[in-house]
Amino acid sequence: VARGDEGRSPRALTAELAAIVGTDHVLTDPDLVAGYVVDWTGRFRGHTPAVVRPKDAPEVAAVLAWCRQEGVALVPQGGNTGLVGGGVPLAGEVVLSLRRLDAVAVDQIAGQATAHAGVTIGALQRAASDGGWSYPVDLGSRDSATVGGTVATNAGGLRVLRYGPTRAQLLGVEAVLGTGATISHLGGLQKDNTGYDLAGLLCGSEGTLGIVTAARVRLVPPPRDVAVALLAFDGAADSVAGALALRRTLPALSAAELMLGDGMTLVCEVTGVAPPFAGSGRPLRSAAYVLVEAEADEDAAGALGDAVAQLPGVRDVAVATDPRRATELWRYREAHTQAINSLGAPHKLDVTLPAAQLAPFVDEVPAVVARAAPDATTWLFGHIADGNVHVNITGVAPGDLRVDDAVFRFVAELGGSISAEHGIGTAKRPWLHLNRSQGELDTFRRLKAALDPDGVLNPGVLLPPLR
Amino acid sequence: VARGDEGRSPRALTAELAAIVGTDHVLTDPDLVAGYVVDWTGRFRGHTPAVVRPKDAPEVAAVLAWCRQEGVALVPQGGNTGLVGGGVPLAGEVVLSLRRLDAVAVDQIAGQATAHAGVTIGALQRAASDGGWSYPVDLGSRDSATVGGTVATNAGGLRVLRYGPTRAQLLGVEAVLGTGATISHLGGLQKDNTGYDLAGLLCGSEGTLGIVTAARVRLVPPPRDVAVALLAFDGAADSVAGALALRRTLPALSAAELMLGDGMTLVCEVTGVAPPFAGSGRPLRSAAYVLVEAEADEDAAGALGDAVAQLPGVRDVAVATDPRRATELWRYREAHTQAINSLGAPHKLDVTLPAAQLAPFVDEVPAVVARAAPDATTWLFGHIADGNVHVNITGVAPGDLRVDDAVFRFVAELGGSISAEHGIGTAKRPWLHLNRSQGELDTFRRLKAALDPDGVLNPGVLLPPLR
Repeated sequence: VARGDEGRSPRALTAELAAIVGTDHVLTDPDLVAGYVVDWTGRFRGHTPAVVRPKDAPEVAAVLAWCRQEGVALVPQGGNTGLVGGGVPLAGEVVLSLRRLDAVAVDQIAGQATAHAGVTIGALQRAASDGGWSYPVDLGSRDSATVGGTVATNAGGLRVLRYGPTRAQLLGVEAVLGTGATISHLGGLQKDNTGYDLAGLLCGSEGTLGIVTAARVRLVPPPRDVAVALLAFDGAADSVAGALALRRTLPALSAAELMLGDGMTLVCEVTGVAPPFAGSGRPLRSAAYVLVEAEADEDAAGALGDAVAQLPGVRDVAVATDPRRATELWRYREAHTQAINSLGAPHKLDVTLPAAQLAPFVDEVPAVVARAAPDATTWLFGHIADGNVHVNITGVAPGDLRVDDAVFRFVAELGGSISAEHGIGTAKRPWLHLNRSQGELDTFRRLKAALDPDGVLNPGVLLPPLR
Repeated sequence: VARGDEGRSPRALTAELAAIVGTDHVLTDPDLVAGYVVDWTGRFRGHTPAVVRPKDAPEVAAVLAWCRQEGVALVPQGGNTGLVGGGVPLAGEVVLSLRRLDAVAVDQIAGQATAHAGVTIGALQRAASDGGWSYPVDLGSRDSATVGGTVATNAGGLRVLRYGPTRAQLLGVEAVLGTGATISHLGGLQKDNTGYDLAGLLCGSEGTLGIVTAARVRLVPPPRDVAVALLAFDGAADSVAGALALRRTLPALSAAELMLGDGMTLVCEVTGVAPPFAGSGRPLRSAAYVLVEAEADEDAAGALGDAVAQLPGVRDVAVATDPRRATELWRYREAHTQAINSLGAPHKLDVTLPAAQLAPFVDEVPAVVARAAPDATTWLFGHIADGNVHVNITGVAPGDLRVDDAVFRFVAELGGSISAEHGIGTAKRPWLHLNRSQGELDTFRRLKAALDPDGVLNPGVLLPPLR
């Protein structure tokens, strides 16, 4: 196992790395390093002897070769927007920042882009849009999160329902593996059965097998018409059944976001926005809401309206007839994060349930949390048609992991996943065994040993220590 | 490297395998074995000491454990519909037939199915349809090709353009790896970032890393309305430009199949069908044709017609207004295989080109073939909007690989892939280096050594021998 910085003269280390990337691109000044050693939530804080900022794949390969030779561990870092501590040097690793690899090129004929690791998702989206196409992965951190980071974590986001996660966009990568090999497969062929899917394997491997330096991604035609509606239901069962039915009856469905009555009330209190359906003569608060969005060539609102009219259990409907109203409806969902944070830093758990277990989970998880921490409050929302629920818990000390443990065990009992889209990082390693058998963990370790034989790539991430 | 049957008493081998799967399921009689040792085209013919037919994953694991202990190589086989010799025991391997693993279950709520390896694609499609859903992978061999085989080869087929290849449908697998581990991840979670994507890695690995015993796949809503049109163009450049433009302007596009004038004439001669656009007053034969299909919630023909009306270079259009006419139009494309086979067994090459190189390839490849074999005739058709061209060559002896070599080298020069959807098998191993660097091949070998440390799984397939 590679070590961090202990046992090596910082000056010698800096000089040797500077010989590869240039003096200006080895940061050791605490002020300059500060932003690289802590995640944006402040939960994960580490330290590093140096932040190295290579400019291209050959420099990445040279830094990695040096690390292997010296037995120094490194942590690749993109936009540092992760939520599970996977990009922070918690054990004193060298930080390899990929942000200088920021070139992007759109192939308008093919409807594809080659984006280097440091390109932000926002910049990729803008380049795609300038070329008449759309990059379908979208997430709140779009202007910080990078292509490299989203490939390494198989980022999901707001439009997985229609377009799939990052892995579904990936036609190939350029990467430097832990073996030292630089592989490059950026030709953008849509069908290419010539061996193992290395791009797919690296995607979601959280920087433990190789360092992705560029990606070839598919683009999609921008939607011509988008419609948004907010539906109210009497409970989780009806709302989940409604969202799942829309997946079948409305192929144009691009989002289905669950909210609950408590969360909606909190959002309205914190933001000062009027509750939905105010003035409709109905009770102001419903037990559950689903925000739905559809994309179509034309008349998305008509298709959405027709599909919603067929749904049983819908108590109230608001259809946005213009973009301003659509933004207002989305705001109920998007303000959940801010509203919950106003109560103190929550435990943020991101889980998936099998379709049939979604409603029971939503109904029962507050009691599971309460048994573990009687003073805690549970807030639920998420991408419900994907099975993805964001479980936020307030009223618990940040370091008290009993609620996390209780929720993860409940999720696993129901056949769900402890990480829908955030990855495992360092934060969820203790619970990975709930989802993965000894045979799977052993297989992961064999793959790790095959592609990172010196164990220098993110050694503290994903794989639990052998017991 | 594991050996085939040499050096072992056939009787002892049979008895030991029968102890695992039962006497009835170890086939050694030449009449019974005959169908397992040759592919359907007759090009690949091998021999085997025994065909073993396990009934479930534990029996597969026991057979594999025995093979590892005895150093006996095995070839997993599904429907035996491959085109590259990947499922035939060319070096006397034991054949492991997965066809008895034929259970399939549809989860109507989730819109998913769990299909065991031996289920045919046709059976999976029917089960999906009975449940109100559709399995989007479709191919001509649907009633023979199996789930296990299509996962192992990442099969593509007729609807990749809209739904992606097999890998895009895959939510998880059950598999017995070459290490002996049985892994199972069939929960059907749509978002699940808990470690490396083992299902995606096994998909397309052609039975060299593990034996897939079951798959969890997504289903899609069946299309409500389908429209088909045949477009005529003056040449490859216009037809390719038209197909690529439709990808952007018609998101509902589900197929775009290229045909050329020579092929169309041959089809009409062989089948006795009238040429398209006969009686329109235009010349009977165009240089190129594209058959297009669109799927929509409603009025697919309208959407298709509108998009086609915007295309430059369209010389003639026939829109099918009923299913019978749609079938007639599809027949021009589907009869290509039969028509070409009537001239003698062709060399069938399946390649992908980058979008910008498609038209030059179509225009120039006949001359490339003619230089390698002056008496040869080249026939081109395929899934043009995917970049996928089927190159059929007649007038060349089956064993004369000079035309294959010339075409593959030309494809690689243009940045294309020597295998779009058929895989590498044994047939394309000599050319894999045209598409994959030494670093990539070395990485493949490391993955093979990690997951099949005894080298018993399909040792003659995919990876070229080390030089």
